[in-house]
Amino acid sequence: MLYTPFPVLDHGFVRVVDYMGDDGAIVQAARVSYGRGTRRVSQDRGLIRYLMRQRHTTPFEMCELKLHVKLPIFVARQWIRHRTANVNEYSARYSILDREFYIPDERQLAGQSASNRQGRGEPLGGAEAARVLALLREDAERTYDRYEEFLNERPDGGVRDPDRSGLARELARMSISLAFYTQWYWKIDLHNLLHFLSLRADAHAQYEIRVYAETILDEVVRRWVPAAYEAFCDYRLGGAHLSRGGLDVVRALLAGRRDEAEALRAGSGLAPREWRELVETLGLEGDEPAAQA
Amino acid sequence: MLYTPFPVLDHGFVRVVDYMGDDGAIVQAARVSYGRGTRRVSQDRGLIRYLMRQRHTTPFEMCELKLHVKLPIFVARQWIRHRTANVNEYSARYSILDREFYIPDERQLAGQSASNRQGRGEPLGGAEAARVLALLREDAERTYDRYEEFLNERPDGGVRDPDRSGLARELARMSISLAFYTQWYWKIDLHNLLHFLSLRADAHAQYEIRVYAETILDEVVRRWVPAAYEAFCDYRLGGAHLSRGGLDVVRALLAGRRDEAEALRAGSGLAPREWRELVETLGLEGDEPAAQA
Amino acid sequence: MLYTPFPVLDHGFVRVVDYMGDDGAIVQAARVSYGRGTRRVSQDRGLIRYLMRQRHTTPFEMCELKLHVKLPIFVARQWIRHRTANVNEYSARYSILDREFYIPDERQLAGQSASNRQGRGEPLGGAEAARVLALLREDAERTYDRYEEFLNERPDGGVRDPDRSGLARELARMSISLAFYTQWYWKIDLHNLLHFLSLRADAHAQYEIRVYAETILDEVVRRWVPAAYEAFCDYRLGGAHLSRGGLDVVRALLAGRRDEAEALRAGSGLAPREWRELVETLGLEGDEPAAQA
Amino acid sequence: MLYTPFPVLDHGFVRVVDYMGDDGAIVQAARVSYGRGTRRVSQDRGLIRYLMRQRHTTPFEMCELKLHVKLPIFVARQWIRHRTANVNEYSARYSILDREFYIPDERQLAGQSASNRQGRGEPLGGAEAARVLALLREDAERTYDRYEEFLNERPDGGVRDPDRSGLARELARMSISLAFYTQWYWKIDLHNLLHFLSLRADAHAQYEIRVYAETILDEVVRRWVPAAYEAFCDYRLGGAHLSRGGLDVVRALLAGRRDEAEALRAGSGLAPREWRELVETLGLEGDEPAAQA
Repeated sequence: MLYTPFPVLDHGFVRVVDYMGDDGAIVQAARVSYGRGTRRVSQDRGLIRYLMRQRHTTPFEMCELKLHVKLPIFVARQWIRHRTANVNEYSARYSILDREFYIPDERQLAGQSASNRQGRGEPLGGAEAARVLALLREDAERTYDRYEEFLNERPDGGVRDPDRSGLARELARMSISLAFYTQWYWKIDLHNLLHFLSLRADAHAQYEIRVYAETILDEVVRRWVPAAYEAFCDYRLGGAHLSRGGLDVVRALLAGRRDEAEALRAGSGLAPREWRELVETLGLEGDEPAAQA
Repeated sequence: MLYTPFPVLDHGFVRVVDYMGDDGAIVQAARVSYGRGTRRVSQDRGLIRYLMRQRHTTPFEMCELKLHVKLPIFVARQWIRHRTANVNEYSARYSILDREFYIPDERQLAGQSASNRQGRGEPLGGAEAARVLALLREDAERTYDRYEEFLNERPDGGVRDPDRSGLARELARMSISLAFYTQWYWKIDLHNLLHFLSLRADAHAQYEIRVYAETILDEVVRRWVPAAYEAFCDYRLGGAHLSRGGLDVVRALLAGRRDEAEALRAGSGLAPREWRELVETLGLEGDEPAAQA
Repeated sequence: MLYTPFPVLDHGFVRVVDYMGDDGAIVQAARVSYGRGTRRVSQDRGLIRYLMRQRHTTPFEMCELKLHVKLPIFVARQWIRHRTANVNEYSARYSILDREFYIPDERQLAGQSASNRQGRGEPLGGAEAARVLALLREDAERTYDRYEEFLNERPDGGVRDPDRSGLARELARMSISLAFYTQWYWKIDLHNLLHFLSLRADAHAQYEIRVYAETILDEVVRRWVPAAYEAFCDYRLGGAHLSRGGLDVVRALLAGRRDEAEALRAGSGLAPREWRELVETLGLEGDEPAAQA
Repeated sequence: MLYTPFPVLDHGFVRVVDYMGDDGAIVQAARVSYGRGTRRVSQDRGLIRYLMRQRHTTPFEMCELKLHVKLPIFVARQWIRHRTANVNEYSARYSILDREFYIPDERQLAGQSASNRQGRGEPLGGAEAARVLALLREDAERTYDRYEEFLNERPDGGVRDPDRSGLARELARMSISLAFYTQWYWKIDLHNLLHFLSLRADAHAQYEIRVYAETILDEVVRRWVPAAYEAFCDYRLGGAHLSRGGLDVVRALLAGRRDEAEALRAGSGLAPREWRELVETLGLEGDEPAAQA
């Protein structure tokens, strides 16, 4: 797993540079904390599932992962909002960026979602998609041409146009667009990594960061800490959080008190969107109390 | 609310020294983030509930609370594990601790729980309780006598016994027990405060820290940010998290497929303890599929 | 001071939204920590200077500042690297960015520094500067035109070109360059703010972030916590750190042992750049031991 | 180095459980950040010294260390104040503490310092020391006897006195004193570790935590990352920070302007304590301007 780059998007990748600890290190740390108290949990897997379920998070902090990631700047801007990580990013004050920019796959080119204020709706398809892709590529190429012109440096370190002095790197980079790739070393402990993944591998996350999260989850975490991966999928990704009002409705429905469930729903202050989420989570479709009215 | 000490335990208190922001500041920050996108959420309360439900946590970080807390050292040792806060604790290297120690109320004196490895079981009651309380008090008094003897300082700064040189404060404090009170200024943002409260106002938390959490929640948070308080109670404290396996069982039960629910339960890898929690959460008692077998 | 925007660069600003604490809060927190021990420091100013000198940082964490900042994206990318702060940034997934981009003042347009790998050298001046400015403006305008075309939205929320479906906001923003302005709410405690300012108000910081740091320092911190400001200027900004080798040289020079200073310098492993910094810091110019050889 | 416990105090130890990265990882991360810009720094050691001197801290964050530490509770209380670390501590809610407590070496038994409000003065020595040591030992033994009595558990898990129900572990621990040993796993990145060591290996730190810091520095850091260790000793531990006023005085003295130095000192607002520190740092003793007056 070490050093192999897992490709993401058109030019990006995720590469494991180093790691510390494994499933055993989680168990080891938990046994220090709970001492003799954990003896009865005979199996490591069972203990890890218990820790995940009870949100005993500190043992997961005892594992650490260091990744080398290449990613578009607009993805990096979302990613960096997770503060509990260590980062060394390629600096365009010191060095020159490469001519590499993100052009979405045609299937990812979509209009604004009508129902979800932050997401995308239907793919454009056809002629409009082709036109947008051509414009994106053309703009990015011209942007990079201009960047090179501003820098006025040749690859060998010499000057391109001896009649101009060029612009300092820290200024020339201003003209670069958010579609260009940057790269960084990113180091994070397993607990905070799982939190990052629970947000960024989620269906609400933007596609371009979600594919990074999915790659880290499926290619790295699954191999590195298989028991923690399984517990995370069962208790975090695959689970759901019910609110107080949602729980009341479910309890009434399970007890066969349909009328009460309907009344609870009406009086519970459950927002319409929250109700739709509940219906979807519990597979209530045809069964929806409101539909009975 | 400012400056009034809310008493906790026998000598402790929680006192608001300062705060920054309120429900309006949460909304204000969210509207910066989501810009025009939040216009449709017409009411502040609705927006705050949406943010809490969707775990959009950063707007809650825009409120800050500073408390003055007096608490037993063993409680302080649990409390300090929450790292995202600012703390100035009374230092026994510089100053002399007061003769104040925690003696539990008789109703809180309990033996080790048989079922819960970390908690307490039945109250001792009667003669045993009286004996334990007397010993606790006697030990604490003698401990403080010895501390004073080691310090060899009079309240006016003079020397108690001129034939001895006394022990440095940073050493004399070693003899103090974990029942003694310390105090600190503790400053934290609302998001991290709510996370602290969700763990420490929980039924699994030790009684002696839980009463601090409940005081902060009911006396401070409820008055300071009423909309955030309400959303927190509905979506965090009063809600429940269902695992992937638990969700499968609930879906089958709601669809009236009892046999499938039972099979799912058997094959799901739900730990016995997890199943008991699910039964309790959903009020399944008499209804428990296993009980039908 | 509250709410007044202090202008920075061509379209940016810094605006105080809220604050908590002042010089008195620093002193108050220190007196909790050091208890009776601080009674002898009769004046608040003296205590604050002592805390700053001895790097007792926690009392400074008891003050909190919330700013509204408008800044170019490339500045925001440097700024966000300071992790111990709370941030709510305007989101271009939800909302549409304004047509506002940074065009440097002509005096700031400079080539790459020959001596400093990360900075700028001489201003371009004259015709080259005029040409670069025109190109920067032209590129930014065209970038924004394209962004609007991709969005295909009218200000009233309607559609510009009914024959196209437009691009989702989260995708259209890719074409924006790093020169465009974003804005955020940024909340930080005084200790971490001073650390940020010590790095970003420094001469090595890029001009475009330095002017923000200087504005915060001179317009906000100086008024908000005057004693802490003065101590910060005296002990951090105006001070200097000498290495072990540098100290040895200074001690020899102060003792009048010039030969030894020269030998120490030769054998000390002081890097040439380090030596130049020492010479500059101590005003040794004409006095430089090496120059005597 | 792995797993070997380095003994500290009478029953404590520091043991390396795991580590990630080395000097090479610091260099690797720096080269990602500064890209081609660092090519000219031909040697790793030179680059590490440059990073340490310029306080480019993020590359040092790319190394991580996990220690198993056994330490008295009053030391743990100081230690935990460093928040940027991961901790799993032995829990006395779940488990029973051992009969192990700290008794200082006779040479460490000292009275309160007259000059330093937070430290110790002269060793007690002789009869008083012997008496204090006997009391410390007697008190700790009695404390543990009482703890065992409260628990009412036999080592085999059975009950000691069948007529009593015993006290829950989470309550019985209250009677333990701060001299008793606890243990934890502590994981931290190299940058934050060096910050911890700069404060805790300092002469102002309490002896009992300083010996842990010195052990980590000399036994672990020196072997693990020798180039970073050397740079840390040269630029942090062995260096000194001069204030603006201190620098002015030094500049005047170096330029041979004694009168001006004396005037600067008088007018500089240098606190008396600050001046004493400067005199000591620069070896000015006999040379002190004030002494000339």
